[in-house]
Amino acid sequence: MRSGRAVNELREITIETDYVKHPEGSVLISFGDTKVICNASVEDRVPPFLRGQGKGWITAEYAMLPRATEQRNIRESSKGKVSGRTMEIQRLIGRALRAVVDLDRIGERTLWVDCDVIQADGGTRTASITGAFVAVVLAFGKLVEKGVLKKLPVTDFLTAISVGVLPDGEEILDLCYEEDSKAHVDMNIVMTGQGEFVELQGTGEEATFSMKQLQKMISLAQEGVAELTKLQKDAIGKWADVIETSSAVSEK
Amino acid sequence: MRSGRAVNELREITIETDYVKHPEGSVLISFGDTKVICNASVEDRVPPFLRGQGKGWITAEYAMLPRATEQRNIRESSKGKVSGRTMEIQRLIGRALRAVVDLDRIGERTLWVDCDVIQADGGTRTASITGAFVAVVLAFGKLVEKGVLKKLPVTDFLTAISVGVLPDGEEILDLCYEEDSKAHVDMNIVMTGQGEFVELQGTGEEATFSMKQLQKMISLAQEGVAELTKLQKDAIGKWADVIETSSAVSEK
Amino acid sequence: MRSGRAVNELREITIETDYVKHPEGSVLISFGDTKVICNASVEDRVPPFLRGQGKGWITAEYAMLPRATEQRNIRESSKGKVSGRTMEIQRLIGRALRAVVDLDRIGERTLWVDCDVIQADGGTRTASITGAFVAVVLAFGKLVEKGVLKKLPVTDFLTAISVGVLPDGEEILDLCYEEDSKAHVDMNIVMTGQGEFVELQGTGEEATFSMKQLQKMISLAQEGVAELTKLQKDAIGKWADVIETSSAVSEK
Amino acid sequence: MRSGRAVNELREITIETDYVKHPEGSVLISFGDTKVICNASVEDRVPPFLRGQGKGWITAEYAMLPRATEQRNIRESSKGKVSGRTMEIQRLIGRALRAVVDLDRIGERTLWVDCDVIQADGGTRTASITGAFVAVVLAFGKLVEKGVLKKLPVTDFLTAISVGVLPDGEEILDLCYEEDSKAHVDMNIVMTGQGEFVELQGTGEEATFSMKQLQKMISLAQEGVAELTKLQKDAIGKWADVIETSSAVSEK
Amino acid sequence: MRSGRAVNELREITIETDYVKHPEGSVLISFGDTKVICNASVEDRVPPFLRGQGKGWITAEYAMLPRATEQRNIRESSKGKVSGRTMEIQRLIGRALRAVVDLDRIGERTLWVDCDVIQADGGTRTASITGAFVAVVLAFGKLVEKGVLKKLPVTDFLTAISVGVLPDGEEILDLCYEEDSKAHVDMNIVMTGQGEFVELQGTGEEATFSMKQLQKMISLAQEGVAELTKLQKDAIGKWADVIETSSAVSEK
Amino acid sequence: MRSGRAVNELREITIETDYVKHPEGSVLISFGDTKVICNASVEDRVPPFLRGQGKGWITAEYAMLPRATEQRNIRESSKGKVSGRTMEIQRLIGRALRAVVDLDRIGERTLWVDCDVIQADGGTRTASITGAFVAVVLAFGKLVEKGVLKKLPVTDFLTAISVGVLPDGEEILDLCYEEDSKAHVDMNIVMTGQGEFVELQGTGEEATFSMKQLQKMISLAQEGVAELTKLQKDAIGKWADVIETSSAVSEK
Repeated sequence: MRSGRAVNELREITIETDYVKHPEGSVLISFGDTKVICNASVEDRVPPFLRGQGKGWITAEYAMLPRATEQRNIRESSKGKVSGRTMEIQRLIGRALRAVVDLDRIGERTLWVDCDVIQADGGTRTASITGAFVAVVLAFGKLVEKGVLKKLPVTDFLTAISVGVLPDGEEILDLCYEEDSKAHVDMNIVMTGQGEFVELQGTGEEATFSMKQLQKMISLAQEGVAELTKLQKDAIGKWADVIETSSAVSEK
Repeated sequence: MRSGRAVNELREITIETDYVKHPEGSVLISFGDTKVICNASVEDRVPPFLRGQGKGWITAEYAMLPRATEQRNIRESSKGKVSGRTMEIQRLIGRALRAVVDLDRIGERTLWVDCDVIQADGGTRTASITGAFVAVVLAFGKLVEKGVLKKLPVTDFLTAISVGVLPDGEEILDLCYEEDSKAHVDMNIVMTGQGEFVELQGTGEEATFSMKQLQKMISLAQEGVAELTKLQKDAIGKWADVIETSSAVSEK
Repeated sequence: MRSGRAVNELREITIETDYVKHPEGSVLISFGDTKVICNASVEDRVPPFLRGQGKGWITAEYAMLPRATEQRNIRESSKGKVSGRTMEIQRLIGRALRAVVDLDRIGERTLWVDCDVIQADGGTRTASITGAFVAVVLAFGKLVEKGVLKKLPVTDFLTAISVGVLPDGEEILDLCYEEDSKAHVDMNIVMTGQGEFVELQGTGEEATFSMKQLQKMISLAQEGVAELTKLQKDAIGKWADVIETSSAVSEK
Repeated sequence: MRSGRAVNELREITIETDYVKHPEGSVLISFGDTKVICNASVEDRVPPFLRGQGKGWITAEYAMLPRATEQRNIRESSKGKVSGRTMEIQRLIGRALRAVVDLDRIGERTLWVDCDVIQADGGTRTASITGAFVAVVLAFGKLVEKGVLKKLPVTDFLTAISVGVLPDGEEILDLCYEEDSKAHVDMNIVMTGQGEFVELQGTGEEATFSMKQLQKMISLAQEGVAELTKLQKDAIGKWADVIETSSAVSEK
Repeated sequence: MRSGRAVNELREITIETDYVKHPEGSVLISFGDTKVICNASVEDRVPPFLRGQGKGWITAEYAMLPRATEQRNIRESSKGKVSGRTMEIQRLIGRALRAVVDLDRIGERTLWVDCDVIQADGGTRTASITGAFVAVVLAFGKLVEKGVLKKLPVTDFLTAISVGVLPDGEEILDLCYEEDSKAHVDMNIVMTGQGEFVELQGTGEEATFSMKQLQKMISLAQEGVAELTKLQKDAIGKWADVIETSSAVSEK
Repeated sequence: MRSGRAVNELREITIETDYVKHPEGSVLISFGDTKVICNASVEDRVPPFLRGQGKGWITAEYAMLPRATEQRNIRESSKGKVSGRTMEIQRLIGRALRAVVDLDRIGERTLWVDCDVIQADGGTRTASITGAFVAVVLAFGKLVEKGVLKKLPVTDFLTAISVGVLPDGEEILDLCYEEDSKAHVDMNIVMTGQGEFVELQGTGEEATFSMKQLQKMISLAQEGVAELTKLQKDAIGKWADVIETSSAVSEK
C-alpha cells in the first residue's frame, strides 16, 4: 500500500494566495511535495486570430525549474525549444480554463496563466490547473473591483486530479511521483464544480484498461474533485458565492 | 443530421497496402476524404536511453502536406519547429502502438512510423493509428519472413476512432471535419481488438460533458472499433491469425 | 547499358490531375518510380517586397516524405531547419515557373507550389518542375473559370529533365537513382515548349566535362522535353491551346 | 531621498536555506522585494573541454519567471533563445563563483547553479550571486559529509552588491528597481570576504562618471559587502569557520 | 617582460578611414595584429520601443571571421545562434557609443555599427569601440554635409583600452592575446576624451584584485586613452574641432 | 554600353596573398569593387560520413559583411539561419574545389574554405571560387613544405566567371552589380585550366535564352578563364609548375 494514504485520499493540499506581488492573480499551490507557482496576468489585447471580435482569450504556459526534479533537467530556453510534454500540458491547462470562463464577457483581453513548478513530486499538471483556476478568479476579481468588468466572467469551479491503476490492480487517487512511475494506467481528469467532465485523458503505456477500471477511476476522481473544490472556495473567499450563483444559473 | 450517415456509421474506410516501395511496411488508409500514408521503417538501433537493454522501441512522426487542408498551412520545416498539436499526435501514435507490441521481443531495433496526411477531412489521428498498426504488422511480418524475428511481436489489434457530441446533444461516431468543428465534445478512443482501452482523450473546448454522455460515446466507439478491426484483418491477411492466437493467450 | 532503356528514352511518365481535393491545382506525377504530389494554392496577397505593385508572385516548396528513399531521412521539421539541397531545389522550381507566367497579369496574388516527393528514384526535381507546371496551369485555369482572371497568364510550356554522363562516357537521358549515383556529370535542364533554355545546371562532382559532352547532353534533353510537353498537353486539356497561342505570339 | 533608507543602507536581506528538496544546495534569498531561488546541483562529469584533467567546473544559469516583473515578459523557452542580458548575467555568476572555489579539489564534477528570479525589484544579479554562494557551500558541504570530498573546496566568501549614482549626483547602495531605472550610473561589484575585487562592472548609460564617484561607490559597496558576508555566515552555519580558516591561509 | 613593449606602451595603432565604399562611415583599425573593420550605417527608422519619440538609436553588432583566430571557430550563422561572448561585446559597444552621442538630435534614425574582426590578437572589443567611434563620427559628418543634421551630434571623444595584471603582479596596458590568456586580471575601460568613465569592466577569472591594483590599472588606462584620442583626432580631421567645442560646453 | 569595358573585358582583378596571418592559405581577391577574403584552414579530421576511409574533404562557407552591399543586410547569425542563396553558393564553391583536388592524397583532413565578402559589386561567387583556389593551393603548399603531404594534391587550375545577356541582347563577360541586376540571363561558369567545365549554371529569371546565346556566353567565359588562370599562376608562384605537370599528366 502507498505511504499510509488511503486509495481515495488526497495528499496534503495547500493554496497560498497573493504569493508574488506583480501578477493580477498569484497562487502557490502544493499537492504534497509538488509545488507550483500559478500567476495570472492580464494583457489588453488578444492574439491575431481573435482581433476585432470583441471577445477575449486565455492561454497558459508551463515550465519546471531545472532542479524541480530528482535529476536536473536542461532548461528549455537553453535547448531553444519547448518539449512535446510541455506543449501538451500547457495546451491542456489553457483549454480547461477556457471551459469555465465566458470569453465573450472579458473584452479584447488575454489572460496569460503561468504555471511554474518549483518542486515536483507527481501530479504537476493537475496541481497547475487547480491552482491556475484560483489565480484566474483572483485576476478577474481584481478587474471587477477596478470596474473594468461588471461581473466575474467565471461560470463554474475547475479542478483537476490524477487517478491510476497500480501494478497490483488497485485504483488510486492523486499519484505521487513514485506511484506514477510504477502505475500501469495513468489518467488525468478535469472537472467542474458541478461534476461535469472538462477533460479526460487516460493512458495505458505498455498496458491497457477495462471499462470497469475506467468507472472505478472516475469515481475516485469525483471524490477528489469535491474536496479540491472546497479548498478553492476557501482560497477565493468572497468570489466563491458569485461563481456558485453563476453556475447554478447555467445549469438549468 | 449528418450527411446521410447514421450516428453509429463509419465513413467509407479503405486500406491499401504496399503503397510506397521502400518502407518495410507501407499503407494508404482513407477514412472518407481523410487520406494518410503510414510508413513503418526498421532501424537497427535504439535511442540512447534504451541502449544495452536488449529491447526495442517504436516511435511515430506525424505531418500534413501544407495543402492537405482547405487553407494552406505553413510547413513546419519552414517554421523551424513542430507545433504542439503535431507533438501531441505523434506522442499519442507511438504510445498506442507500444501498447500492443512486445518490445522485449524485437531486439535492439527502432520502428519508425511516419504518418503523412495527404488529404484531411477530420479524424487524421485516428486514421493514422489505425493505418499505422497495419504498417507495423507488415514491417514485423517482413522481419519474420527474413528470419530476423522468430514470431510476430504483436499482442493484439489496435484501432482508433473519434466520437463526439453535436450541438443538439446527439452523440456521433467518426466525425468529419465539418462535424468536428461544430462538436461541443471531441473524444478519441484507442482500443485493442479485445475491447480494452489503450487511450481515452475527451475534451470539451468551451463546453463540458456528463457521465451519461461519456458512456454513450464509449459505446459508439466500441461499435466502430469492431468494424475497423475486421478491415485490418483483411489488410494484413495471413498475419491476422498469428495475432489472434497471441492475444487469446495473453487474455487468459 | 541501363536497365533496357535506350540512352534517349524517358522512363514511363504519368500525370494524374486533381489528385488531392483542396488545392486549386493538384497533380501526381511519376517519372518511373519517382512519384511527386504537386499542389498549387492561390493566396490573395503577395510577399512584402511586392506589395502595392499590382503584380503577383510564384513560390515553391519541396520536401520528401522521410521514407521516400531507400534509407529513412530525418524530417526537416524535426531538425528545425531546411537543408541546403532542399533550398536549392525549391528556389529552382519557383524561378523556373516564374519564367513562363506573366506575373503582371495575376494581380496581387501568390501561387504557392508544393512539391512533395512520396517515392524517390532519381530526378525528383525535374519531375517536380514538370508536374508543378501542370498544377499551376490548372490553378490559373480555375481562376479564369471563376472570372477572377480574364485569361490564362501562362506564356509557354515548361518542362525539366536530367541528363548525365556515365562512367563509360555515354551520355544518357532521365537518370534513375542508380544511374545518378554513378554518373560523372549530372545536368538538369529546364526548357520552354519553344525549346528555349530557362535554366541549365551542369555539375561534375569530382569530375569535369567538355564542350562536346555538353552539346550531346543538351541534344538528348531536347528530345525528352518534346515528349514531356506532349504529356503536359494531354494533362491540361483545353488549356493547351490557350498556351500555344500565347507563346506563338510572344515568339515573334 | 530614497524610500526612507540611508544611502549606505541595504534593503532587508533574508536567506532561507533548504528551500527546495531535491537540489544538493537550495536557497531562497530576498533583497527587499527581489526574491531568487538559488539551487546548486552536482553532476558527476565535466564539460568536454575539461575532460581527463582531474578538475571540476561551475556553471550558472539565470532566468526570471515571466511575471517576476511589473510587465509580463515572454518566456525565453518560447522565444527559442536566451537574451543577451540573460547570457551576461549567467556568465557573470559562474565566473564569480569560480573565483572562490578551488576547482582542482572537486574532482571531475560540474556544479550547476540555477538562479530563478520569482519576484524582481532591482538587483537580481547581485542577489543571485550572494544566494548562489550559500547554495554552493551547502552543496559542497553535503559532498564533504558524504565523504566524497575531504574538505570544503571554498577559499573565501563571495557577495555582490549594486551601487549607483542618482540624477542628483548622490551615490547610493543596493538600488531597487525604481532607483535603478533613474540612476545615471549603475555598478555591480563582486567581492570576497577578504575585501578583494572579483568583478567590477560600472556602466554609464547615456552618462559618464568620474574617478571620485568611482571611489565613493566602491566605498559604499565595501560597507554592503561586510554586512552580506555576516548574513552568509549565519546561513551556512558550521561551514563558516572552515571557510575563514581556509581564506586566512590563502591570504598569507 | 612583454615582447619589448613598456608596461604603459600601446601596440602600433593605425586607423584607415573610408575602407569599404558603401557604408556612411567605414574604418579599418589595427591594434598591433588585431584588425577590425568598423562600418556605420544609417537607417531612417528606429526600433519599435522608440517610435514616435523623435529621437534616434545606436546599436552595434560584432563578429569574427572564422579564421581570425589561431584555431578556426564555427561561424555563428551556422550554429544558428550568437554566443554569450558576442552578445556581451555588442551590447557594450552600443552602450558606450550612446554615451557620447546626443540621440535627441539625430531624429528617428538608427545607426548600425558593425565591427567585424578580420584578424584577432587580443583586445578586439577595445579596438572595436575605438574604431567604431571614428566610423560613427564620419557617418554623422556625412549627414551634416548633406544637410540632414544641422550639427554633429557627438558630445565627446570615446576610446577603449584593456589593462591587466600579469602573473608576476605587474600591471600592463593593451594586452595582446598571449598576455591576455596569461593575465590574472583583465579589465576593459571605456573613457571619454574628457577622462570620464563610460564603462569599467574588471574581471578576475579564478583570481581577485585589490584596490591598489585597480588604481594602478586605471592610471595606465588613462595614459592609453590620451594617445588613442589623439589618433582619433587625426582620423576624423575637420570634425575634431566640432567635438572639442561641444564637449567643452557640456563640461561646464 | 557598359562603363567603358569591352564586352569580353574583365574588371581589374587583383589577388593579394597572405592577407590574414593565421590561416594556412589566405587571399584577398578583387574583381573591380568586389572584394573577398578567402581563407583556407586545415583540420586534422573529416566529417563523420568519411571517417576511416583514408581520404579527405573540402568544404566551403560564404558570407557577406552586413554592409558589403548598398543596403545593409541583416546578419545571418542574428537571423539564426543561413539563407538559401548562401547555402547554394557555399555548396557550389566546395563542389568546384573538390573537382581539382585529389582527396585520396590529403589523408583524413578537412580543408575549410571561408569566403567572406567585405565589399560587393556583383560576381561575389565567381571571385570567391577564383580566390579560394589560390588559398587552397597555398594551404596545401604549406603542408607539402612541412612534409605532411608528399606532393601538391591539386590536379588543375580552377577559375569561375560570370557571363550574361543584357536587355539589348548583347552577351557580356564579368557582370558588375548594375549589369547583373539588369541582365535577362545570368550564367556562372567554373572551368579548369584545361578548359573543361566543372560547373555551368545559367538562369533566365523571368526570361529565357537560346542555344546560340548559350554558345556565345560560353565563348566569352573561355576568354575570361584564360586570363584568370594567368593571374592565379602569378599569385601562387612556384606551385604553378607543379599543377601544370600534374594536369598535363591527367590529360593524357
